[in-house]
Amino acid sequence: MKLLEDKIKNEGRVIGTEVLKVDNFLNHQVDPALMAAMGEEFARLFENDNIDKVLTVESSGIAPAVFTALALHVPMVFARKKKSLTLVDDNYTADVYSFTKQETNHIIVDKRFISAGERILLIDDFLANGQAVEGMLQIADAAGAEVVGVGIVIEKTFQKGRAILDEKGIRVESLARIAAFEDGQVIFVN
Amino acid sequence: MKLLEDKIKNEGRVIGTEVLKVDNFLNHQVDPALMAAMGEEFARLFENDNIDKVLTVESSGIAPAVFTALALHVPMVFARKKKSLTLVDDNYTADVYSFTKQETNHIIVDKRFISAGERILLIDDFLANGQAVEGMLQIADAAGAEVVGVGIVIEKTFQKGRAILDEKGIRVESLARIAAFEDGQVIFVN
Repeated sequence: MKLLEDKIKNEGRVIGTEVLKVDNFLNHQVDPALMAAMGEEFARLFENDNIDKVLTVESSGIAPAVFTALALHVPMVFARKKKSLTLVDDNYTADVYSFTKQETNHIIVDKRFISAGERILLIDDFLANGQAVEGMLQIADAAGAEVVGVGIVIEKTFQKGRAILDEKGIRVESLARIAAFEDGQVIFVN
Repeated sequence: MKLLEDKIKNEGRVIGTEVLKVDNFLNHQVDPALMAAMGEEFARLFENDNIDKVLTVESSGIAPAVFTALALHVPMVFARKKKSLTLVDDNYTADVYSFTKQETNHIIVDKRFISAGERILLIDDFLANGQAVEGMLQIADAAGAEVVGVGIVIEKTFQKGRAILDEKGIRVESLARIAAFEDGQVIFVN
């Protein structure tokens, strides 16, 4: 998606060889017009897939996910992150390890909001090692819901997340695919 | 806002005399069309106020805030919640006590994303005791930004938050104002 790639080139900050900071338009300060355009693009990519619900994880997934859900005319659900689990009976839960923060969070979805047979589209801001998406897959599995595909804003193709999802046969659509960071510049997959 | 009041009446769950659960359309499962309509209504209410930026707190404020910012054609910033503070030099921070969860979180905004002289609209999902809004006011003050007003999705008028903001002379616009909960029913302010 050219609009997003241009934004990454112009406003993203590369740190070392693995980290891209996009906190000025995606995950701290947010560009609403870009979020709306991304939501429409995800909706276009999955428009023939009879999506029943969009699922993401708080907080950075919420903005792209809510515009995707708006364009698909379906509800959006965001999984909650918790450090510790107390009441679990009413919830589906999964563990998500963050390589960036080097900590494990639990993600939680109330059982009322994901049901057997529902066709789910997962949305997330980054695909790197795939931990958050794997957590959402576990929750969908536990609910008996079907994950139709995964929509990613920024994919770092050189980390293992995409390969894990490819192996599972899950369709992944990424709006920007990064091949590498070289000399502080972002190299996109052509 | 009638659309929101109807949604609260039909889908909100009253627990005891103080708690309203709206996790099926606002803060866990999200109704995107309702969020879009709320964003347009906040934008209409503040359309003549030359807003430069919309500020909210993760996670439940993000959806209404991003649609408000879209309609006002300005960026949105969401403050991050943290249990503990490590690097603070680059950030504005404030303490926010949650009466519901009985815990204190720090909220954090990167200094790059709020500037002296900016005209800020605060958005939040609930106004109860006013702690989150007070935290955002502290951050705006520290940055030398001006808070033009506060947009609230659901105001519980019987708790102290509104009185605190009225005393400070801050304009508050709430899309639904709740007078009381009686026998499990929501009584709105007329």
